[in-house]
Amino acid sequence: MSDLLRFGISIDHRLLQQFDDLIADKGYVNRSEAIRDLIRNTLVTEAAASDEEEIVGTVTLVYNHHTRELSRQLTNRQHTSHGLVISALHIHLDEQNCLEVIVVKGKAREVKKLADEMIGARGVKHGKLVMTTTGKDL
Amino acid sequence: MSDLLRFGISIDHRLLQQFDDLIADKGYVNRSEAIRDLIRNTLVTEAAASDEEEIVGTVTLVYNHHTRELSRQLTNRQHTSHGLVISALHIHLDEQNCLEVIVVKGKAREVKKLADEMIGARGVKHGKLVMTTTGKDL
Amino acid sequence: MSDLLRFGISIDHRLLQQFDDLIADKGYVNRSEAIRDLIRNTLVTEAAASDEEEIVGTVTLVYNHHTRELSRQLTNRQHTSHGLVISALHIHLDEQNCLEVIVVKGKAREVKKLADEMIGARGVKHGKLVMTTTGKDL
Amino acid sequence: MSDLLRFGISIDHRLLQQFDDLIADKGYVNRSEAIRDLIRNTLVTEAAASDEEEIVGTVTLVYNHHTRELSRQLTNRQHTSHGLVISALHIHLDEQNCLEVIVVKGKAREVKKLADEMIGARGVKHGKLVMTTTGKDL
Repeated sequence: MSDLLRFGISIDHRLLQQFDDLIADKGYVNRSEAIRDLIRNTLVTEAAASDEEEIVGTVTLVYNHHTRELSRQLTNRQHTSHGLVISALHIHLDEQNCLEVIVVKGKAREVKKLADEMIGARGVKHGKLVMTTTGKDL
Repeated sequence: MSDLLRFGISIDHRLLQQFDDLIADKGYVNRSEAIRDLIRNTLVTEAAASDEEEIVGTVTLVYNHHTRELSRQLTNRQHTSHGLVISALHIHLDEQNCLEVIVVKGKAREVKKLADEMIGARGVKHGKLVMTTTGKDL
Repeated sequence: MSDLLRFGISIDHRLLQQFDDLIADKGYVNRSEAIRDLIRNTLVTEAAASDEEEIVGTVTLVYNHHTRELSRQLTNRQHTSHGLVISALHIHLDEQNCLEVIVVKGKAREVKKLADEMIGARGVKHGKLVMTTTGKDL
Repeated sequence: MSDLLRFGISIDHRLLQQFDDLIADKGYVNRSEAIRDLIRNTLVTEAAASDEEEIVGTVTLVYNHHTRELSRQLTNRQHTSHGLVISALHIHLDEQNCLEVIVVKGKAREVKKLADEMIGARGVKHGKLVMTTTGKDL
C-alpha cells in the first residue's frame, strides 16, 4: 500500500451508527479499515468465481488416520498436483482424528478441482476450501 | 434517509481502481451507493444470524403440483403460521412444476423454522430462504 | 418423478443418529426425502455456478418507494429484460419501505446480470438473488 | 466408524443419473461416500451455527508483513487466546505478502470472536474462517 487516495462517502446517520456498533464489536480500529475489508472481500469473491484468476487456497480436511491408504493417497495427490501445493500442516486432533490444512496456489479452476478430489476421498470426514488472494493486487 | 453525514476513507489507489471496475460492471452509479450496499449487506447478515431480530424473509419453493396434498399442505402451513406470512406469489413454470414465493415477517428464528418446514415438505424439489430487512433501520 | 429406483447406503450408526435428529428437527417425514433434498440442493448449486444453464431466479429487493424514479427505473428494467422477467410481487412493508420479489427465468449469466443491476440501483436498501431450478430435470 | 448400518433410499432415476454424473466429476468412488459427505456437511453447518458446540476452526489470513506491528499483534493475540490456538502455519507468498493459517479449537462462539479480531486487524488484506468438526462424532 504505497499510493493512498482519500474519498468521501455520504451516508444516513442511523445507518452509520449501526455500522460503527458492528465494527466496534468485531474489533476494527476504524471505519476505513472496515470498509477496505468489505471491498477486498468483494474482490476476492469475484476472483474466486472466475476460473482463470490466480488465487491462493487453503483446504481444510478432517479425517480418520486409520482409514487404510488415506494418508498416503492424500500425500500422493499433493505431490502429483504439478506444483499447486505450497505447504501442508498436519495436526493430531485425538487418537483417531487428524486435521490437515493444505495451502495451494494456482488458477481458481485447478485449485477447486484439487480440493474437490481431496475432500471427496474416502475417509475424509469434512473438508472445506477457502479461496483467498495472492496479496499482489490488494 | 433524512440525516446525511459524510466521512472520508483512505485507500490504496490500486485497490480503489479494482473496486471502481467491479462496481461499474455491476451497474452502480457511484462509490457511495456501492459502499452503502456493502454496509447494509453486512448488517442484514448479522441480523439474520441473530435469532431474535425482526426480519423479512422470502421463501422460494419449486415443486411438482401433482404431488398429492402438497399444495394444500403448504397453504395450510401458511395459514397456521400465526401471522408470519404476508403474501405469496404462485407461478406455473410448466405443466408439472410450480414456483411459489412466500413472503414472511417475524423473528429470524420463527422465519427459519417456517421456511425449514416448507422446504422439507415431501414433493418440494428445491427451496431457499432469503432473509432481508424490514427496511426500518436501513 | 415416474421411474423410481432404490439403492442402499452404508453409514456409521452414530452419524445416522445425528442425521435423524437433525431432519426430525427440520420437519422431514423420512430420510429418503431429506437425502433427495441434499442431492437436489447440490445439483442446483452446480447449475447456478455454470453460466449457461437455464435456471429460475427470484430477486428480493427492499427499497424506499419515495426514492425519486426508483420504482419507474425498476419497472423499466424489467420490461427491457428481453423476456427474462416472468412476474413480480410488490408488498408495502410500511409507509416508506417496499419489498419486491421479481421472478426471472433464463441463463444463469443473464439472470445474475439483471439481478446485479436491480440490486445496485440507487435507493435499493438490500437485495438478494436466489437461483433455483426450472424443475424439469429434478 | 465401527458400527455400520445400511438403509435404502428411493429416488427418481433421472435425479440419480445427474447425481452420479456430478460425483464422478468430483472424484467420489461411490454414492455412499458422497451421501455421507453431504450428511456430515449438513451436521457441521448446524454445529457451526450453534454458539456453544465445540468445533475446530482454521483462520486463513493474507497480510503484508511490512505492516508495522501486525505480526507481533497477531502472535500476541494467539498467545492470549486462553488455549484456543493449537498451531499456525506461516507462508511467504512473495516479498511483501504472507499467508498464515491458524488452527483453533473451542466453542463456536469463541472461535468466531478470535477469528473476527484477527481478520479485522489493520494490515490484514483478506481473512476467512472455516469451521469444521473435531471429528469425534462424525
